[in-house]
Order: sequence, then C-alpha cells, then structure tokens
Amino acid sequence: MTRQELIQAITKQETYLCVGLDSDIEKIPGHMRMQHDAQFEFNKQIIDSTLEHCVAYKINTAFYESQGSKGWESLEKTVNYIPSTHFTIADAKRGDIGNTATQYARAFFETMNFDSITVAPYMGADSVRPFLAYPGKWAIVLALTSNRGAEDFELLHTLSGPLYGRVLEKTAGWGTIENLMFVVGATQPAMLAEIRKNYPSHFFLVPGVGAQGGDLEKLSEAGLTEDGGLLVNASRAIIFASDGPDFARAARDRAKQYHREMQRYWDRQQSRF
Amino acid sequence: MTRQELIQAITKQETYLCVGLDSDIEKIPGHMRMQHDAQFEFNKQIIDSTLEHCVAYKINTAFYESQGSKGWESLEKTVNYIPSTHFTIADAKRGDIGNTATQYARAFFETMNFDSITVAPYMGADSVRPFLAYPGKWAIVLALTSNRGAEDFELLHTLSGPLYGRVLEKTAGWGTIENLMFVVGATQPAMLAEIRKNYPSHFFLVPGVGAQGGDLEKLSEAGLTEDGGLLVNASRAIIFASDGPDFARAARDRAKQYHREMQRYWDRQQSRF
Repeated sequence: MTRQELIQAITKQETYLCVGLDSDIEKIPGHMRMQHDAQFEFNKQIIDSTLEHCVAYKINTAFYESQGSKGWESLEKTVNYIPSTHFTIADAKRGDIGNTATQYARAFFETMNFDSITVAPYMGADSVRPFLAYPGKWAIVLALTSNRGAEDFELLHTLSGPLYGRVLEKTAGWGTIENLMFVVGATQPAMLAEIRKNYPSHFFLVPGVGAQGGDLEKLSEAGLTEDGGLLVNASRAIIFASDGPDFARAARDRAKQYHREMQRYWDRQQSRF
Repeated sequence: MTRQELIQAITKQETYLCVGLDSDIEKIPGHMRMQHDAQFEFNKQIIDSTLEHCVAYKINTAFYESQGSKGWESLEKTVNYIPSTHFTIADAKRGDIGNTATQYARAFFETMNFDSITVAPYMGADSVRPFLAYPGKWAIVLALTSNRGAEDFELLHTLSGPLYGRVLEKTAGWGTIENLMFVVGATQPAMLAEIRKNYPSHFFLVPGVGAQGGDLEKLSEAGLTEDGGLLVNASRAIIFASDGPDFARAARDRAKQYHREMQRYWDRQQSRF
C-alpha cells in the first residue's frame, strides 16, 4: 500500500486505528479453542467485526511462532484474509546482516504479502535497507518504544542526544516518507510531540494504547498531521474485550469507541490546517 | 545444555566450531532441490558429515521463514535431528516487550527445543529477561556484530563509551555466565580481545569467519579461555563448500580444516594455563 492510499483510507474513514492481532491461544475464548485452527478462526471474526473502524492490522509474529509451524500457517492465512483496503503490519522486529535481512524481506513481502514489517535498528544500515527495496512496502523502524526497557538503551545519552534520536536521524536518511515509518511509544506523549517537530511528514506506528495505558487524546494532539501521520495500535484491549461467545461484538464495540474518539481528534486537528 | 556440558564437549573434541545452517534454498545443490523438503534433507546430510568436527549448530531462521510454513517445518525437523551432544542456536535475533518475548521464548525453548537464541538488546531488560528463565537454556545477546552496519549504532559513543560496551555491561547484569552469552563479531579481533578482558568468563558466539573474512587465528588468540569461551561460527564457507553431489563431503573437509586449526589454537592456549 502506498502512502497516498494509506492517507486516503485514513481520511475516508476518519480513523487511524490499528488492531493488533496478538492472538494468544491461551486467551482466546474457551468455546473457540476446540476449533480447527482456532487462532485463524478467532482472527477472522475479529477482522470481520472491526474492519470499518480501523485502517490497519498488526500481526505479532511471536504469538504464532509459539504454536510452531501450525501457528505460522495461521499467520499466513490471517494476512491473506485481511482485505487490501487495510494496511498490514508484520510486527516481527527483525534485524540481521544484509544477506539475512534480504531473506526476511522475502519472507514477509514475497512469500507473505504484508505491506510492512517492524525492524530493529541495532545492527545498522545493511539490516534495514533490504526492506526498503520494495515499491509500496514499508520498514517500520523501532525508535522509542512503550516498554520500561526503553530506558536501558533507547534513552541512553550519546554525544549528540539520546540514542533513539540518533536512530531517527540516521534511519530517516536511509529511506523516504514513502517507505519508512517509526515506532514511537504511546506512553511518552511529550517525546512524541518533540519527535513530530523534527519529523513532520513521517508516519509513526504508536503502540501502547489500551493495556499499556497510553493516552489517546494526548498522543493524537502530539502526533496527528494533516495527512494523519499516525497508526495507533491497540491489541489486547480490543481483541480480548470479552472472553465469552460475544468476543467479536465486544471487539467491535471497543474498536468503535476508539474510532469515535479518533474522529473527534481528527476533526479538531483538521480544523487547524 | 548447561555450561558444564558445553565446556566438556569443547574439551573432549578440541573444537569450538559452530556450523551455521543458513540453508538458502537457492544455493542448495541442484540435484537436492527436487527432493521433498530439500532444506531438511540438505541439513541432514550436512549435520551427519560435520558432527565430529563441531560442537554447535546455528540455524538462521530467516532462511526458513522465507519458505513460509513449509520452511518453518524444515526448521523444526532440523533442530529435532541435531543430537543432544551438540549445542543448538536459533539465530533469530528476536527482541520485543515482555509479554511478546515470553511467547518467543516459548516458541524456541518449548515448542522447539533449542538450547539458545540470539536476541537483540535495543528494547532493554524486559525484552531479554524471559529468555533467561529456563534452566539450561541461553540468551545470546547481540553486542558487537561483524557487519558494516555495526558502525551506525553499536560503535556510537555514549557518555560512558561505545554503545556495545553499555550493552555488554547492562545485559551481563541481567543474567549469569550460565545463561547469557554475547555475539562478538570476528572481523574485529582487537575489540574482541578488549571485550574478553572485561568479560573473562562469558561465552562469545563469534560469527564472521569464512565468507565474511574473519581471521580464526587472531580471534582465537583474542578470545579463547581455559574453558573454551568461544563458539566460532562458519556458515556459507562450510555448507556451500561445493554445489555438486559431493557437497556433504566438501562440507566435512572444510569443517575438518577448521577443526584441525582450532586444535592447534586450543593446545597453544591450554599450555598457558
């Protein structure tokens, strides 16, 4: 999906919600678990019921890998099931030397048809560049994450500011606003605002809303642009809104709440441009 | 595999060679590619023919993920095929927030039975700790890698030295010499010597010998300890030593050469203690 298509989807639906399919088999409602390929069947119902409230789905590979090759099949079926109207993110956080990164790009962009993949920057340019070589595909680089561990290295001071700042600066130069996004955690709206100042046109993938406690209003104020510029992810808060037979409806309701909230912030923001 | 078992294996065989199963389907000899599950069949023959010359096998997940769920099956079959006399490494470079890292640990330590996994440190403590909770299992943390991209962030100066030094220092505190190793690239023997001074007892996984040009003698001088302390990996140089029907024999010959060389350095090193 191109930048233009993504912006159109956001503008049309007035939502920048990304639904995170962290479909932990142990948290899937009991009545679903008996089914053949419960993970996929669960995802199918979640996707069907949330489509109109979101623009993107983020699939966290860990929850599928923990189920072995069967889980990998569920992952493949899930990404195939998501309609092309919606942006797909492989939340895989891959990062390895050039010839290996090329294989990962093949895995997620060719063997599977994801629009984007999250990548870890630690190993530098050759670990990120192979993901930037596909037209209409995106690398989403970890910059500042929403977890406590962000303090250990991401916020570490280098001779020219915190490490995440250096990561933003360097990696921005490897791609363009058409093929590179950043992960910026929702739990730090002030930092998000600061990053937005320096990167006015890049899309940010913002995890940390919902279970992790990020404030949607504050981060929207801090990060929204004329083009949207944000994909705000909620996973557990939506997909596990209920653990009963009404889970899909509960997920829809929760996604709708986020959608309505986002419409307000979107309108407010648009009135400024 | 415990530290003691690993040291015994190294001492007994006088080798610290790790064979990297970067079994790129496009580089597997032509006559093998026709076979059902060519990746696994190729690996089987490579393992059979190199067992006596190495102590470890490193499986690079990217080369399997690029083949989709079938590739993931080949990966599972490969790790099951490696005898328990040999240390197994999932070269997966995973790194994510705590609840996700827990799923990755489950994938590689429970669903599959790897002894260890390579992990990326960028996201900090909660992304590494879940891998340290399994007795006899290891996290191998990226510190200083062998690729050019290492210059981008790993060698970046922080207020207290280069980033990789901070990574070593911090992560060493999260685990012990019984469950934590470091990746230290072979292309920087002087830095390896320096790191060895500060971490005299940790095992280092050293990639970069062979196709990447690392010097085995220099890095052995720099890194070997009384216990071994090194796992030196070669991938392409061994597994693709020939692309003809003699590939397994060529791999054995190449592994044997490394083994003989390692015996010399090992003897020399042991005579010092």
